[in-house]
Amino acid sequence: MGELLAKFAPYYAVDVALIVQKYGGTSVGDADRIKAVADHVARTRRAGHEVVVVVSAMGKTTDDLIRLAGDVSSTRPPREMDMLLTSGERISMALVSMALADRGVEAASFTGSQAGIITDTDHTKAKILEVRPDRIREAIADGRVPVIAGFQGVSTSRDITTLGRGGSDVTAVAIAAALNADVCEIYTDVTGVFSADPRVVPLARRLAKVSFDEMLEMAATGGRVLMLRSVEFARRHGVPLHVRSSFTWQPGTWVVEEEPSMEQAIVSAVTDDTSESKILVHGMPDRPGTAAALFRALADERVNVDMIVQNESRDGVTDIAFTVERTDAERAVAICNAAREAIGFSSVAVDNEVGRVSIIGAGMKSNSGVTATMFETLAEQGINIESVATSSIRISVIIRSTQVESAVRALHTVFGLDEVR
Amino acid sequence: MGELLAKFAPYYAVDVALIVQKYGGTSVGDADRIKAVADHVARTRRAGHEVVVVVSAMGKTTDDLIRLAGDVSSTRPPREMDMLLTSGERISMALVSMALADRGVEAASFTGSQAGIITDTDHTKAKILEVRPDRIREAIADGRVPVIAGFQGVSTSRDITTLGRGGSDVTAVAIAAALNADVCEIYTDVTGVFSADPRVVPLARRLAKVSFDEMLEMAATGGRVLMLRSVEFARRHGVPLHVRSSFTWQPGTWVVEEEPSMEQAIVSAVTDDTSESKILVHGMPDRPGTAAALFRALADERVNVDMIVQNESRDGVTDIAFTVERTDAERAVAICNAAREAIGFSSVAVDNEVGRVSIIGAGMKSNSGVTATMFETLAEQGINIESVATSSIRISVIIRSTQVESAVRALHTVFGLDEVR
Repeated sequence: MGELLAKFAPYYAVDVALIVQKYGGTSVGDADRIKAVADHVARTRRAGHEVVVVVSAMGKTTDDLIRLAGDVSSTRPPREMDMLLTSGERISMALVSMALADRGVEAASFTGSQAGIITDTDHTKAKILEVRPDRIREAIADGRVPVIAGFQGVSTSRDITTLGRGGSDVTAVAIAAALNADVCEIYTDVTGVFSADPRVVPLARRLAKVSFDEMLEMAATGGRVLMLRSVEFARRHGVPLHVRSSFTWQPGTWVVEEEPSMEQAIVSAVTDDTSESKILVHGMPDRPGTAAALFRALADERVNVDMIVQNESRDGVTDIAFTVERTDAERAVAICNAAREAIGFSSVAVDNEVGRVSIIGAGMKSNSGVTATMFETLAEQGINIESVATSSIRISVIIRSTQVESAVRALHTVFGLDEVR
Repeated sequence: MGELLAKFAPYYAVDVALIVQKYGGTSVGDADRIKAVADHVARTRRAGHEVVVVVSAMGKTTDDLIRLAGDVSSTRPPREMDMLLTSGERISMALVSMALADRGVEAASFTGSQAGIITDTDHTKAKILEVRPDRIREAIADGRVPVIAGFQGVSTSRDITTLGRGGSDVTAVAIAAALNADVCEIYTDVTGVFSADPRVVPLARRLAKVSFDEMLEMAATGGRVLMLRSVEFARRHGVPLHVRSSFTWQPGTWVVEEEPSMEQAIVSAVTDDTSESKILVHGMPDRPGTAAALFRALADERVNVDMIVQNESRDGVTDIAFTVERTDAERAVAICNAAREAIGFSSVAVDNEVGRVSIIGAGMKSNSGVTATMFETLAEQGINIESVATSSIRISVIIRSTQVESAVRALHTVFGLDEVR
């Protein structure tokens, strides 16, 4: 299969594969969608493949359940929220299994617990500790298609847990890894991973393939198709991903291990993210341990800090800026203020009008001049760069949020990503 | 507690009890109802009692899920139907637990499987084989209120099962039996068990108490409040039942072991049932084994036969009449016809215009003249009795369905059941 994947041949026409197919909420959004999914699973089976299905809750089910919880409770204990929300996949997996039965495909649904998804006890955002897919293997050996509830597991305390945002993808990847599947197909309502957000850049192209590293950078900087967590999991376990549409059923984007033979685009994608705020801490005493104390205080309160920029010190004091999710911004300021006397900085401020634009490409490593091109292009647009952060395959800049869209479009054009139509 | 029950004192004011409270679909029908249920559980706890809650799915959830299944599948495999339907209780039990948390009552929801409800593998109508309530006991010992999903269990093959109609009551009684609870309270949308269907007899009275035997006869002959199955289970395990309203929260009807000291009403209730059809088999050869062959053929196809009446034999042939659920009538006729040559009867006919009226009372055993009074009363109403069946505490008659209501009213009056207002 490795060779096949490398060539992106339609794997199902050539060889027998074990395929994990994950269907998101819109893919199983109503009875017709569920029947379409069942048709596709049946088609894949007829081509001779083993299929394991992982499903999310139907469409807005999870939102409806959360609203219902809000109607009866202001405390909403996490253990009970998990019990509540896991009913969503239970419904969709039973319905998909039934639709498969109608098509002569023997199927059996399995809860996260039955599928052996063992997690820690951190309700509403549990981590998978282990997968014990004995019943899944049995079902496959019996010629049945296992239909597994995504997003859920059972904790080491035997309580039902959920895996948090993007959890169904994590389930699919974990099952694929445990079964040593040939591919994990992520079916969604878009046709793949794009060179930029198509809502911002109408000429954005679907990428036939990206490396795990690129995908990770994209997920971390605003790419909305795959969550960081499932990509990390897939890379760690070497599970090839295929992100594709359950509406067109066309091949989408492969996310695979970078191969030396891959022709590497210098820049593969431009991402944008306006969901963060910038926190500015002024007059920080420039001595060892002050920054550490600040970020420890934030970490203790579970505030995730993203980009950090520290200015050159002047007169023994410096300024530190960092970004956090906008929903955490007020809390972050409060935490800083509480630590002000102990740390000794002079003031803290929040800026909600920032945005981040990033360019990502595995080919960047071996190409000089990319940074210069990026900065020149932004300058031509009259866009001021407030902060910069880089990795070996990514450059991110913080700019005014109002300038994000024009920055993305200009960079998409200058790096040759616009689709030729 | 035994003494208390016998006196029907408000048990919660006097002693510490372990109380299983079962709430049906209308009792948890919406957010407000769930909050009212949580208030009542909290109240019961504040009175010092241990409470274990068993819940059904909210209102019409189960119907909605069945409709959804019909939208995606015509085969609807039973295993998957069970997986689907069990999501209903999962939702209501999580919501009830959350509402309890808001009231400062620590609660924890448990699926049928987690509560140790072990069943056979007969999907959609599984029977409980065993209850292993270890986690429920742990929760109680930890000072928490367990909130258990009714209607569901896990089979010996580790698959999710449902217990069929009235299954949540069965769960509640089984849990009460396993925990040796003092009482199993069945909360519903009526205020108790009545001396007749109040829709038919406006003067029907709520019964403060009935014996298990009476309740069984009532359930078997058209009483709609409790299913036969849960009453049988309660009697077998000596679990006192208290049927009451979750809308008024007033004391309802106790269903208890008959005690010698009980003052026994001659007739406690009049029930009616127009859900059955009568099957008439004419010209049956009157020799050993023919009736057995007929009822074996029906049993093999899982047709439940209720009242059976065989006429006196004449010229070596006889007629047999029996009742079946109206939904099984067509099938019963087909089964009879298929067996006609082998058995040698002449013809079979179905009559859908029949109804059954029954009078029930533990005091009947020691009172002669009840049958005569019943028959005279019906005769005065111009009602012809087509068949009769009796037990030691019940007399049932089959009459025209159009005459059922007037028969019930007349019998309710003549046996002194009309409420004095």
